[in-house]
Amino acid sequence: MRELQLPRALRSELSLVPARTMGKGRLEAFSDGVLAIVITIMVLEMKVPPHSPHLADLKPLLPVFSSYVLSFVYLGIYWNNHHHLMHTVERVSGGILWANLHLLFWLSLVPFVTGWMGENRFAAAPTALYGVVLLAAALAYTLLQSRILAQHGRDSVLGRALGRDLKGKLSVALYLIAIPAAFASTWIAGGLYTLVALIWLIPDRRIERSLTSEAA
Amino acid sequence: MRELQLPRALRSELSLVPARTMGKGRLEAFSDGVLAIVITIMVLEMKVPPHSPHLADLKPLLPVFSSYVLSFVYLGIYWNNHHHLMHTVERVSGGILWANLHLLFWLSLVPFVTGWMGENRFAAAPTALYGVVLLAAALAYTLLQSRILAQHGRDSVLGRALGRDLKGKLSVALYLIAIPAAFASTWIAGGLYTLVALIWLIPDRRIERSLTSEAA
Amino acid sequence: MRELQLPRALRSELSLVPARTMGKGRLEAFSDGVLAIVITIMVLEMKVPPHSPHLADLKPLLPVFSSYVLSFVYLGIYWNNHHHLMHTVERVSGGILWANLHLLFWLSLVPFVTGWMGENRFAAAPTALYGVVLLAAALAYTLLQSRILAQHGRDSVLGRALGRDLKGKLSVALYLIAIPAAFASTWIAGGLYTLVALIWLIPDRRIERSLTSEAA
Amino acid sequence: MRELQLPRALRSELSLVPARTMGKGRLEAFSDGVLAIVITIMVLEMKVPPHSPHLADLKPLLPVFSSYVLSFVYLGIYWNNHHHLMHTVERVSGGILWANLHLLFWLSLVPFVTGWMGENRFAAAPTALYGVVLLAAALAYTLLQSRILAQHGRDSVLGRALGRDLKGKLSVALYLIAIPAAFASTWIAGGLYTLVALIWLIPDRRIERSLTSEAA
Repeated sequence: MRELQLPRALRSELSLVPARTMGKGRLEAFSDGVLAIVITIMVLEMKVPPHSPHLADLKPLLPVFSSYVLSFVYLGIYWNNHHHLMHTVERVSGGILWANLHLLFWLSLVPFVTGWMGENRFAAAPTALYGVVLLAAALAYTLLQSRILAQHGRDSVLGRALGRDLKGKLSVALYLIAIPAAFASTWIAGGLYTLVALIWLIPDRRIERSLTSEAA
Repeated sequence: MRELQLPRALRSELSLVPARTMGKGRLEAFSDGVLAIVITIMVLEMKVPPHSPHLADLKPLLPVFSSYVLSFVYLGIYWNNHHHLMHTVERVSGGILWANLHLLFWLSLVPFVTGWMGENRFAAAPTALYGVVLLAAALAYTLLQSRILAQHGRDSVLGRALGRDLKGKLSVALYLIAIPAAFASTWIAGGLYTLVALIWLIPDRRIERSLTSEAA
Repeated sequence: MRELQLPRALRSELSLVPARTMGKGRLEAFSDGVLAIVITIMVLEMKVPPHSPHLADLKPLLPVFSSYVLSFVYLGIYWNNHHHLMHTVERVSGGILWANLHLLFWLSLVPFVTGWMGENRFAAAPTALYGVVLLAAALAYTLLQSRILAQHGRDSVLGRALGRDLKGKLSVALYLIAIPAAFASTWIAGGLYTLVALIWLIPDRRIERSLTSEAA
Repeated sequence: MRELQLPRALRSELSLVPARTMGKGRLEAFSDGVLAIVITIMVLEMKVPPHSPHLADLKPLLPVFSSYVLSFVYLGIYWNNHHHLMHTVERVSGGILWANLHLLFWLSLVPFVTGWMGENRFAAAPTALYGVVLLAAALAYTLLQSRILAQHGRDSVLGRALGRDLKGKLSVALYLIAIPAAFASTWIAGGLYTLVALIWLIPDRRIERSLTSEAA
């Protein structure tokens, strides 16, 4: 059976991948599952104080809570960007599957470093390691992106949307400053992590814009 | 490629979003994942008593269990309403994605406050904080709703279904009474939380009705 | 827009629900999520012995392991039957959503009673309580079934497939014997729980058969 | 209603199963859910050291971390291969459902044996048991494969893709050597487990190739 039997337009509209190539549906479903679990199990690090019915009993949890908020935002950004990135994928190869798993690996370490940083009240080493995991995740995301680009071409929707990927490069640079800076002042490191999050919180309209201009 | 190549009727029937806008499928899948995890990890707060083979050994778990039941119902209501709300969404924007993540953030705190309230046998401060998280979730839901309304218009299915959103406003008012009341009597606060749950348990037929009347 | 614009045959073939009724897709996805989590977090009850590198160190975990196996099979049966049951659903109402959540509630308690039973080496009360949760889940399943029947009619695929639902009734009867029997001998109770599992492990071909005969 | 009313080509292209047979969608969704949870809860075994803000405090976690990496890769391979395997499935029977649950059962034990092996720094018995669980999972995968083959025929896409399944047989042989070898030297066992992972990390292009040649 040939994959051309259904008009290309219909296939594209339905966002369905022809049966002869590996579908991206399960890739998205699995990634959603892992990200949903990672984002939720972080809250298990906030151990319920058993015999402590006063609000003041929660005070020691404040650094844990604020590191939870930061990581929640980061994972939200990754999910959001992953969502947009996968939207541009038309064919899933083994290389893309593994590049995606590699990204999920680093993101799965976020709850651990979040907990370590929070429970040690933003001490130097935990704060630096937090940045190392964020850096590794950022590089893994870039790798995934370039695998997709390699398969779909610089001239694809993604290729035009990314351009020179300034945001991605800036993030990596800021992590590289923040990690050693953590040993001088964790405030600087924490501030830089927050800055990177803010850069990305501004929604990545590049792909949306590129899609819109194409549709016009 | 234009998105009009497939008849609008077909696209609508298939509940599939044209490839040129961000699909709501992953938004629903991710939300389902987070809600499913949040609703299930609460049960981990009920720590299995290790060397205690008698029914009486479970007695200290009773407040934990009853707070679990209340939160299970609340999360069920949120899932249910989210299900209906998303049903009316036709286009997903970055703003809707983040408003949704914001709602999931507050809901992800439910297991923590449930555990704190249950393990301290409905003490004043935990019971009040439980209400604060419920209030924040309610406001986040309202925000998500209004982001969707802003994009789809007051005259959309959702707009007509919501009307003046009396249920939503009443819930917020009851939370605002319950939170300070917890410091006077946790029975009043608990009663008010239960009352809000009951108000919503009566299934939200507004959207169903609006859909039905339109289909007629 | 009328839901008749797409031929009924096509809609049915595609297993897609017309846009004007609530889709069953998310109901299935959410149930899958909760069941996947419930089935997996049970394994967290098997606490890794930290400084115990010998096989003999695992011996105390044997009852926990065997209760895990039993519960895994039970949850597998529920998932399997839920899968078949939902397959017959054409329209999802608020009542069905809540009957489904009610079933998930009881199933979410399975890890707790499994852990309690396993860690107390099948003592009387935990073994009885295990049966109580199984009984409640069975009744919740029956309730869900009858809500679906009420909406689709005795003459629907499900109605003809169920017939007098002997398996369901037999299971309830066996649980009702096993629960008090646990206080006399946990071997009898455990045997009866295993028997019920075996009854259901024989795959429920009723729906498959009914579907096949209809398709003929 | 006959399932032939929609052209076969369309059904195949849309990767949708006709309504009269059990769909594979939920089988994949449930498996994705369980695998996503299994792969993520392993990270919970890495307990955050509470009052230990120095990098040196993480040193005891190194064996736990390296066993986590190995298991993450293994589960990634299983997900990847499962993804390819399910892609060839056209009809899901009760036997396939249970063979799949059986595979998930063994994979659900991976976090436990990973934790036991890691926390006891690759002691003999835990390392051997790790191999036993991997062996059982490999056999369960073979069983699932042969159930699918039995239903789709040796001449199906899967049948031609598998050929004599040398990789599968080699893996089983290597596990059978590694398990007793663990009692002589855990380095040999660990090396063999890594070797098996590497064999599979080379992506399984057999099915892709078979699909491609068919599409040509």
